This record gives sequence, C-alpha cells and structure tokens, in this order.
Amino acid sequence: MNYQAPLRDMRFVLHELFDVAAHCQQLGIELDRDTLDGILEEAARFTGEVVAPLNRNSDEQGCQLADGEVITPDGFRDAYRQYVAHGWASMTGPQAYGGQGLPQMASASFHEMLMAASLSFRIYSGLTEGAVLALHRHGSPALQQSYLARMVSGEWAGTMCLTEPQAGTDLALLRTRAQPQVDGSYRITGSKIFISGGEQDLTDNIVHLVLARLPDAPAGVRGISLFLVPKLLPGGERNALGCGALEHKMGIKGASTCVMNFDGAQGWLVGEANQGLACMFTMMNDARFQVGLQGLGIAEAAFQGGLAYARERLQSRALTGPAAADRPADPIIVHPDVRRMLLTQKTLTEGCRMLAIYTARQLDLEHAAPGDQARKGATRRAALLIPIVKAFFTDVGQEVASLGVQLYGGHGYIREWGMEQLMRDSRITQLYEGTNGIQALDLVRRKLLGDGGAELNLLVDELALHVEAAGVGGGLHAMATAVGQRLEEWRVLAGHVVEACQRDPQEMGAVSVDFLAYSAYVLLAAFWLQAAVRAETALAGGSAETDFYRAKLHAAQFYWRRVLPRATAHREALLGGADCLMALPASDFAF
Amino acid sequence: MNYQAPLRDMRFVLHELFDVAAHCQQLGIELDRDTLDGILEEAARFTGEVVAPLNRNSDEQGCQLADGEVITPDGFRDAYRQYVAHGWASMTGPQAYGGQGLPQMASASFHEMLMAASLSFRIYSGLTEGAVLALHRHGSPALQQSYLARMVSGEWAGTMCLTEPQAGTDLALLRTRAQPQVDGSYRITGSKIFISGGEQDLTDNIVHLVLARLPDAPAGVRGISLFLVPKLLPGGERNALGCGALEHKMGIKGASTCVMNFDGAQGWLVGEANQGLACMFTMMNDARFQVGLQGLGIAEAAFQGGLAYARERLQSRALTGPAAADRPADPIIVHPDVRRMLLTQKTLTEGCRMLAIYTARQLDLEHAAPGDQARKGATRRAALLIPIVKAFFTDVGQEVASLGVQLYGGHGYIREWGMEQLMRDSRITQLYEGTNGIQALDLVRRKLLGDGGAELNLLVDELALHVEAAGVGGGLHAMATAVGQRLEEWRVLAGHVVEACQRDPQEMGAVSVDFLAYSAYVLLAAFWLQAAVRAETALAGGSAETDFYRAKLHAAQFYWRRVLPRATAHREALLGGADCLMALPASDFAF
Repeated sequence: MNYQAPLRDMRFVLHELFDVAAHCQQLGIELDRDTLDGILEEAARFTGEVVAPLNRNSDEQGCQLADGEVITPDGFRDAYRQYVAHGWASMTGPQAYGGQGLPQMASASFHEMLMAASLSFRIYSGLTEGAVLALHRHGSPALQQSYLARMVSGEWAGTMCLTEPQAGTDLALLRTRAQPQVDGSYRITGSKIFISGGEQDLTDNIVHLVLARLPDAPAGVRGISLFLVPKLLPGGERNALGCGALEHKMGIKGASTCVMNFDGAQGWLVGEANQGLACMFTMMNDARFQVGLQGLGIAEAAFQGGLAYARERLQSRALTGPAAADRPADPIIVHPDVRRMLLTQKTLTEGCRMLAIYTARQLDLEHAAPGDQARKGATRRAALLIPIVKAFFTDVGQEVASLGVQLYGGHGYIREWGMEQLMRDSRITQLYEGTNGIQALDLVRRKLLGDGGAELNLLVDELALHVEAAGVGGGLHAMATAVGQRLEEWRVLAGHVVEACQRDPQEMGAVSVDFLAYSAYVLLAAFWLQAAVRAETALAGGSAETDFYRAKLHAAQFYWRRVLPRATAHREALLGGADCLMALPASDFAF
Repeated sequence: MNYQAPLRDMRFVLHELFDVAAHCQQLGIELDRDTLDGILEEAARFTGEVVAPLNRNSDEQGCQLADGEVITPDGFRDAYRQYVAHGWASMTGPQAYGGQGLPQMASASFHEMLMAASLSFRIYSGLTEGAVLALHRHGSPALQQSYLARMVSGEWAGTMCLTEPQAGTDLALLRTRAQPQVDGSYRITGSKIFISGGEQDLTDNIVHLVLARLPDAPAGVRGISLFLVPKLLPGGERNALGCGALEHKMGIKGASTCVMNFDGAQGWLVGEANQGLACMFTMMNDARFQVGLQGLGIAEAAFQGGLAYARERLQSRALTGPAAADRPADPIIVHPDVRRMLLTQKTLTEGCRMLAIYTARQLDLEHAAPGDQARKGATRRAALLIPIVKAFFTDVGQEVASLGVQLYGGHGYIREWGMEQLMRDSRITQLYEGTNGIQALDLVRRKLLGDGGAELNLLVDELALHVEAAGVGGGLHAMATAVGQRLEEWRVLAGHVVEACQRDPQEMGAVSVDFLAYSAYVLLAAFWLQAAVRAETALAGGSAETDFYRAKLHAAQFYWRRVLPRATAHREALLGGADCLMALPASDFAF
C-alpha cells in the first residue's frame, strides 16, 4: 500500500485554522510557516518512501525471539538508523539534552504520518519519547545525565513496564517487588506482560521504566514506585532481566510485545518512593494523545487506500445510467453507497485532524504558556479533551479501516491489499494506554464531575464563536444553526449527567461511553463548521484553490447531515439510565 | 475457547415463540418437540465436543497447498467423517436422495451451532448444501441421478464458482467460456477466484457449479450459463481443473479459499442456456440466510467468551464500593460499562436468533406451504427479510466479536484467547454472498420499490399484534407504546423512501444502508417485545423458571432503552438526502 502524507489538509489545519506560527511565537519558539512546511515535506518523503514500504512485510514476517534476542522485521533496523541519523527521533526532546524542543502542535502532523506509514515501526520510538518525558520530569539529575541524551537522540530506547497478568486496568494489584540495596539502587523482581519494545534489535540499550513495590509500601496504588531499569548497566554488563516470550497478536506484528522477566535486576528510583503512579500520570496526557494520533494515522491510510480503489475498480453502472460508457463498467466511486463510505472516512479523518491539532495546542500551552493562568486553563482544557481524543480517534481508526475493507469487497479480506492489516493493527489502540471504556469513565468521573462541568461550558462558549462567525443568512446559516443547537444540547446534557451521577454513582459507568461519543461528534461538528467558515472566506477572498475549498464545504455538509445524527442515538441511549444495566443478576446473563 | 450451544434460548424461540412442532405439522413433516430437542442436544454435543475444539488450531495451522492438493487443518478430516457418518450432512437434503428433509426452522439452530463452533469447518458443508439445492431444482434427471445422493450424504462436496478478478458484484463482466462438445457436454476454460472449498482433502470428489459464457451468448448477465464441473469425471479420471493458489486471508484460515483454473474441463449444463444467473438466484435466499446464521453463530460464541471472562476477571472495585470484599478486586461484571457491553452482545444475539427462526419459517413456507397463496405470501416475506438477515446479522457478528475483544482488554488482542479470531473470521461474512451494501440496495430497490412497500406494511401490521398483546396498563405498557410508535415510524419512513427513490434514483443507494439498519433495529424491538410478553405470561402462569423469564424482561428493557435509539440516528442520517453524497466531484475527495 502506498501512503502519501495529506500535506494540503495538514497545512489547512495548522496554518489556516489554528495558526501554528503565531502559536510558536507565543511559546518563544523560532519556527515560521515555511520552515515547518519544509519539515513536513521532508517528513512526508521519509514516511512515504522509507517507512511505509516496510509495513506490509512487517506484518507477514513479524518479530522473532531467538536465545532471548528479538529480531525485528526486515528493513526496520535500517529505517530506524535513518530515523535517528536525520534527527526525526529528537524532534520533541528537550533542548538541554540535544532535542529540538518542537511543540506538539508542530510535531503532531509528523507523528500522524509515522502512525499511518507503519504503526509497528512507530511504537518503538513513541515509547522512548514517553520515557524521556517521565525521566525529564521526575528523574534525579544523575539519572538524567546518564540516560537522557542518548534516549533523546534515539540511540537508546525506552519502555513502560506497567501491566502484570493480574493487573491491567487495576494497577493496585501490582506484585513486582523492589528491594533496596546498600548502594542506593534496588533489585527488581517480577514479571511484566504486554511490554512493547521490551526487547528489540534497533538500539544497543533499552531503558525500562518499571512500576514496582518497595518492601514497606502500603497496599494499593499508593504503594507503587517507579524505577529505571536498563538492559545494559552503566558498566556495560547485562542486567538481570530479559524477554521470556513474545505475544502472538492480532496485529502490529512488527512491534515486539514482550513478557519481561526481572530477576533481581538492578534499578534506580525515579521520583519519590510510593509516588510511581503520580509520575506516570504526568505523562499520561501526552501518551494518550499519541495513541489518538495512531487512530488518526490509520484512518488516513485506510481512506487513501479506499479512495484509490474506488477510483480504479470498475463494477456495475451508476444508478442513473452509465457514467463511463466507453469502459466495461463504471468506477465504483459513482455509487452513492460507496461515496457514503468514502465521505464517512474523509470527514471523520479530517475532523479528527482538526481536533488533534486543537488539542496539541492545549498540551503545548499546558507546559509552556506564558503565565500561570494560561497554563492552568490549558491544563483543564487538555484534561477534558484527552480521553475523547484517545478513545474517539481510535474508534474512528477502527471504523475507517473497516470501511476500507468494505470498499475493496472480497479483496479487502485478502492480506496483500493491506486493508485488513489496518483493521488488525488499529484494534490494539482501543485497548492499550487505558481501554476506551476507561477513557470514558475518566472523562465523566474525573473531568466532568471534577469541576461540575465548568470547563466543558467554557469550551462550548468558545466553540459557539464559530456559529457566530458563520453569520446569519449566508450559505452556512442552516448548518451553523444546527451546530449551535447541538452545542447547547451538549451543555444541557452535561448538566444532566453531572446531576445523575451525583444521585447514583453507577450512572458514571452507565453514561460514560455514550457521553464520550456524543461529545466527540458534537466537537467535530463545531470544527467542521469552523472549516466551512474558513473555506467560504477563502472563496470570497478570491482564492485560486476553489476545488479544495469547495470540497471542504461539501464535506462539512456531509458531516452535518449524515454523521452528526449519530450524536442523537448516543444521547438517547445514555438517557436510558443505569437501571437497565444493573438490574440483571450476574448469574442470569445466560442459561 | 469453549462453546456450549444455548439450548434453553433456542427452545424458547423455537417452541415458545414460534411453535416449530405446529409448523412441521403444517408442512406434513413428522417432527415433534421432544424429537427436535433430542436432535439439538446431540447437535450441541457434536459441535461443542468435536468441532469447537478444532477451531483455534485451524486458525494457526490454516490450509496448505502442495502439488495442487489442499491439506485442511488437523482434525478436520476426522470431524468431517463423523459429520457424514452421523447424518449431520444430510439433515436438510431432499428425501428422494437420502436426505432427512428437515425444514430450515428445525435445522437453523443446528447450523447456528456449527457456525459458532467453527466457521471454517462449516464453510465446506454449507456450500455443498447450496450446490444440492441448485442441482435439485435445475439439474437434469441424469445429473441428479449421478451426483445428488453422494452430495446429500456429504460423501462428495460442492462449490460455487462465480467470482473472477474483474467480476465480483458485477457478474455481467464474467469471462469464463464454455465450448459445446459433440457429446452434449462442454469444455470450460477460465479462472475463478475466492472459491471456498475449491480444493480440500475431506471428500473424494468435488462438484463445482461454474458460471460461464457460451460462444453465442449475449453480453451481460443474460449471457451467463451454469455448469456442473466435477473434479473427478464419471469414469473416475481427473478433470482438467485445479487449484492454482490459496488466498492469504484475514481469517477463516481453516477454510480453503482457492484460485480455480479450468483448462478445458468437462462440464454439463445445469438448467437452460443463458439462465445461469436465474438458477443461482433461486438458491440465493437460502445461501444468504446461511451467511446470516454465520453472523449469529459468531455473535453467540463471542458473547459466551465475553461473559465467562467478565465473571472471572478480577479488576477494580464497583463504583458503589467493594462487591467481593474478600477478594483482591471485584469481577468486572459489576462495572456498568462491562454490563453495557455484555447486554449489547446478549440482546443483539438473542434478538437475531428470534428473527432468524421467524425468517426460517418463511423460507420453509415459501417452498412447501400448503396452498399457492400461502407460498406466495411467504416468498414475499422472505424476500423482504433475507437482505436484512444477511447484512444485519453479519454486522452484529462483527460488533459482538469486537465487544468480546474489548471485554478482555489487552488479552482480547492475543490470539490464544480466541476473541480476536472471531473478529477476523466474522469479517468475511459482511463481504461474501453479496456485500452488505449490495444487500441494502437489494432491500430498497428490489424489495421495497418492487411493491411500493406493500409487503413491509403487511409485516408492520403483523408485528403490531405484539403491541396489542402487551396490553394496556401492564408492566410492558411503556415499552409496547414505544415499539408501536417505532413500527408506525417505520411505515412512514418506508413511504418516504419509496417516494424519494422514485423522484431520484440516486436516493436508492443513498438511503439503503441506513434504511436496512433502521429496519433491523425496529424488527428486533418487535421481537423483543414478543419475548417480553411471552415471559410475562410464563411468570403469570407460575413457571418455575423465574430467573430465565425475568432475565428476558430485563434484556428487553435494555434493548429498548439502550440499543433501539440507534434507529433514530439511521433515520436522521438517511433523511439527509443524496445531494450531500453526490455533490463532490470524484477528483476532489482528496488533495
């Protein structure tokens, strides 16, 4: 499968909707529009010509475990070498350790491209970036000095070792132990599962961040500490840890998913004792945002695949008579239902792209906005959006990939066409980094109930400005009115949810998934309206790109008319209440 | 993965809702309730103990092609031998050729079990049954004499050879040729793809039914004829045909999917020249019904898997405080969102089971009801329901399997747990035997517009009787009122669709998928109401199975409150019109 980064749409979102150059200036980062465009063009070449061609084979070949060593698929080593050599690895790393310190708003599009080109390949470096974040924020100066520079460059990789067989969502059940040593280090003993990149052949050293319990730790999540446990110790000798097995998975077969055994491995405490979970939480938003981008990237790849096929494949005649009378049949893009699938792919993907960049902006402001007030505001905004981005984008990735399969008919089921691989690869994104059900619970319990809906109301106020901008009586009047009504409906619904959950805690889990989906569809509607307003403005201003902007207007219409109605069903369902979920005794689900 | 046939629910549907014994009596078939229950218990043992244990390995091992011979996965040969020896193969076959002649209404539950136990294993015999049907209805007496008995017994298998690389949905593009010979036979030349069971090691002979063109055939679908082309010729020698390659697929790896090459192979005409498509169409309803059962079977398997895990897996505490305080965490079935997933699985699966048996009844009446009038009525009813059963059940199979993966969290992504296999296996059912988009177009174009909505209105009238039966003021009053409103809404919507499509043919393809989904959700609501009425009656009558019947009432509530709202979104979307699908030029879908 070919992949070409959607550069025009990325520029539309980055520059025309959210003005990334002004954003960088606000953060004191030197990055103008042309420079960023140049980076993205290079990124498009790298991901399209170096990474994407490896993806199909990586699925067939997978990773191999031999004598404790993992061999990654053909080409991954060389591509990773280029990835490091050309500085792609260090794009977001802190400048003090050799990174380029680019904001998320500038790097998100590159990361989307990586996800689209090969999720398996991207997983290795994505985890390293997460480990860098945690270490940079919580590690001792000595640990930072020893590890950060080589992790930022990509010379060394990082992992996150959280899950154990009995402890997935519920980290309170962790059993891995850490025994203090006289030299201030610790001996880590236990077994971790589902460790992405736990072992690989891309880097000489792998720096594991491991959650474990100290001997005197209290029970539950308040007794978990974070440790840095390298594969190679500072002296160069192998640490007492290793990959016991590779999981056999549905997809992302090019990414090693390891059972990692720590047999008294030497490690060092990161952050305070018993504060391991808090240390992880500070990087959670960034990690979940990255998983959201995985959904977006795969959606784009599936849309490109589906569109290319729909333009080429000749099958049956249009309902209104032959469209390509000189050919044996019409290209299937003439069929309304094929268009429905393609436009669903397109509007969900481009809609998520707008929300992604908007969210990236909040993440940057959270870390670096000038002024405490602005940072706090962005923190609240990001906190509200992140569970939506993680869960909704990955649901979209799965749906759009499945539409890709459907567009190919029977060929979609055959491996060589690549569509079914996208479905298999994307399915993990709905599960890891907190299942999508957990994201929804986080949205309702922590974010919505946390402030009684205050931040959501601020967001609605802001988005309502697009309704105003659409003007009265213009071409967008009807759409703007509908979006305005949805925004108010969202506000009222949120109030209802807060009230219901305060009355009955079961409602939190009963409304959560539907409330998240409802919120996402309304958010996307607001951004599609913003895109339409921008397109109208550009056309009115005499832009030569009339096809591009008119396509935005058509797409916005489609989203409003044919996708947004899903919000109605989610609203209606969540108003159905918790009773009909809780009444059935667990013993009576089947007979 | 274990599979245990849901016998209690099957008996509920077969006996309590639709009275299969009376149905058999009406058709003049000797089959009382106890005998059928005995058959189903044996079937449950066979599918649970012999077939289901093969399914996981069949996915890992797949089929192998060596020197033109296909080797099926370990255990398939032996299981198939038992399948034939114990008479399972001949259950529905015509009695004149050694079959047991059971009606679909009696056999559908057994077939559901087979699909659930192993879709790959079932595919071989399912195709044979289809070939038997076609041959029995259209073959010459001589062909029937030579082939039917051994196909009915299962000693020989059958296939359907339709698809070619350039001709999938659009059979008008077929190129395979048939050259008449002086002895009255034909020489068939061409290449077919996606031929399930095209080659295998379960049977000595394989009888291919092949669509091909005669030399003087008109272009398009009116120039296609059907031929019987056996692997072994009557004299015992090999025919000039063979498997050129096996497809590498997303799932159903235990089923061989072959490229079949016919190199002047000897064949015999089935039915009239140039009437091949009509011959295929007469068995289409039965074949599509079987694919619907595949979706249902996989849904049941995924529900069983999800439920077992949700009862055992301990993770986190209930939102209202510990439910199993003596254990390290609560079983996840205490969490509302886990229950939402399980109840969605349950109510979709059990809902489809009701619609399946109702539809099977129509198929039987279509073929064998006493009286021309009754047969014609059943024919129209079956024609209306079949595209819904095929498309909706297979969409349900995919959704319920995906919920199974989600219920297992990260473990759902690991192959050994079996959930992801169900997702991969079921994905084909949305594509083959006419993609689900084609089913929807068939529903709107042929079935709804075909009679202007007359049959749909008759069906609504009939289903409205359940609303009456629910009575006024009883425990089901609110639900019955809501279902009654939906039924009327369906009637009105169908009228709108007919009108819109008559005005603009593009509307047929623009509304089709949403109209099918809307129809299915409303249909299931009517059957859930019927189930609730039956449960109330049983409880009022003092049944000792209070848990079973109360569970039906709870499930009906859940379906009404939390699943039926989806119909609203489909209605709203299809009312969005064709314009927003057709306005965007094909060249402007991406830039």
